[in-house]
Amino acid sequence: MSFAQKVKAGDLRAAARLLRLVDDQRPEALEAIAELYQNSASVRLLGITGSPGAGKSTLIDSLIRQYREAQLRVGVIAVDPSSPITGGALLGDRVRMQNHVLDDGVFIRSLANRGQLGGLSASVAASVAVMEGMSFDRVMIETVGIGQSEVDVARIAETTVVVLAPGLGDDVQALKAGSMEVADIFVVNKCDRPGATNTVRDIEQQIMLSGRDAQAWTPPVLQTNAVDGSGVQELIEALERHRQYLEDSDSLKVRHQVRARFEVEARLFQKLRAEMLAKLGGTSGLDEAVEQIARRETDAQTLSKTLFDSPPE
Amino acid sequence: MSFAQKVKAGDLRAAARLLRLVDDQRPEALEAIAELYQNSASVRLLGITGSPGAGKSTLIDSLIRQYREAQLRVGVIAVDPSSPITGGALLGDRVRMQNHVLDDGVFIRSLANRGQLGGLSASVAASVAVMEGMSFDRVMIETVGIGQSEVDVARIAETTVVVLAPGLGDDVQALKAGSMEVADIFVVNKCDRPGATNTVRDIEQQIMLSGRDAQAWTPPVLQTNAVDGSGVQELIEALERHRQYLEDSDSLKVRHQVRARFEVEARLFQKLRAEMLAKLGGTSGLDEAVEQIARRETDAQTLSKTLFDSPPE
Repeated sequence: MSFAQKVKAGDLRAAARLLRLVDDQRPEALEAIAELYQNSASVRLLGITGSPGAGKSTLIDSLIRQYREAQLRVGVIAVDPSSPITGGALLGDRVRMQNHVLDDGVFIRSLANRGQLGGLSASVAASVAVMEGMSFDRVMIETVGIGQSEVDVARIAETTVVVLAPGLGDDVQALKAGSMEVADIFVVNKCDRPGATNTVRDIEQQIMLSGRDAQAWTPPVLQTNAVDGSGVQELIEALERHRQYLEDSDSLKVRHQVRARFEVEARLFQKLRAEMLAKLGGTSGLDEAVEQIARRETDAQTLSKTLFDSPPE
Repeated sequence: MSFAQKVKAGDLRAAARLLRLVDDQRPEALEAIAELYQNSASVRLLGITGSPGAGKSTLIDSLIRQYREAQLRVGVIAVDPSSPITGGALLGDRVRMQNHVLDDGVFIRSLANRGQLGGLSASVAASVAVMEGMSFDRVMIETVGIGQSEVDVARIAETTVVVLAPGLGDDVQALKAGSMEVADIFVVNKCDRPGATNTVRDIEQQIMLSGRDAQAWTPPVLQTNAVDGSGVQELIEALERHRQYLEDSDSLKVRHQVRARFEVEARLFQKLRAEMLAKLGGTSGLDEAVEQIARRETDAQTLSKTLFDSPPE
């Protein structure tokens, strides 16, 4: 059986191995991803984003449990804001993965940003393609933080959930700076904490200020307590309502185009980076060029010109 | 006079115009940047990063004032986490720029991430080169947020300052997730607020846990109140001490290499992206490819293969 066939048959180990080979840019793995993409239907892709400490991981764990009770198969892609130096994963993800390690209906993949510009996007795109190939019923992409890169990743989802916790007053500033426009659903998690009602009100006010309450879909502001599971069922219902809205309004097509654009950029970037390294003569060539530029004997602009104006080998 | 000469002579309008032309990838502008880079000494580059709401903008404003009193010329590159949809700049930056609009010794450039993978890095690199050409005494790069992209930008600085505010307990989680290892100096701003001492203690504990207190440079944890200026002088002194440490320990050379690597990646990526667009037949060709991929008639991997395996025109 080919890689793509094994993955389609639901082989989790083959899927994990395939994704490792994709990261190494192995041609047979890239071909398998291409085959999976073209021969799968689009998966229900949910983006879960928000500040660190809002309780996203626990919330996702709750969602997994409820989906599994409903016999749905679930994938999770955890984009990990790991240290740029150690490249290590957050402890929480490892713990969470252990909760479901014996369940074939759950596939969790943690992706670390290894500091390679664009590398993360390609890994995300490949992971989604694999989970589509396995016909998962729901795939969640978890991103941590409120920076541009996190927002970009969340945008490939059909439905984006922004999770906040009460008492992080400055989160409202963050909303103004980006998340407000990508959120389809807001969740105030840890709703047993003081200030939850104020946070809900703050968000609702921001929604009005942004004019999103006048649009066809006004993001609901839900309250959950992921630890005891309260409100999670309501979140699942809101996710279904949003999907229905997307189908009824033709917005689903638009979302799929946004995702296709992301895929093109991610894949081409990965390819371009490989070309660049080839032109430089591998990593050691890159290191040498960096040395020269640091000593100001040349500059990045002149270097790129030399590389591109020389005839291809 | 050439562009580079005008910029070297301190012409702010020529500098602003040059940077706009760089964004449009105009060859004469790219050549001017190359000339400036090779004929300038490295500027004292400070990275200022932290969560939204920590008061970075006000703090930078205080730093500008103090540097100007000491007759130092100052550049600021504000990397703006603008909305992915509107592309608008934050109001705060515009207000801040107006404070210094009549001062030739201050050059502020706001850069929006226009959603173009890698485009921001090239703009940052060009802005730094221009400010080097103008022999500014200090250049600050302000990034908002704690995501990977923000951390990456901050890393090209010689000294990176991470700004926090009291009462954002969850910021400590963010520290674990990345900023801890890039910070050379921590600042707890808004130190008049309750909880400032706790936040200082939390950070100091994180420093110990990370083992950074056993290294040659242990990041100091300072308290400032940018609104009334208290603590800002101490921050300036810490910045000078860190610079001295870099010089004494040979670390300065390492920092300059990190920056050179960033420049190479940024510039080559910009060049490659232009090549890619040319191969696709411009933006409309890209749009068409995206449509096909969204309809799953092809996939990003096959597309990139077709583009790169076809002979160059």
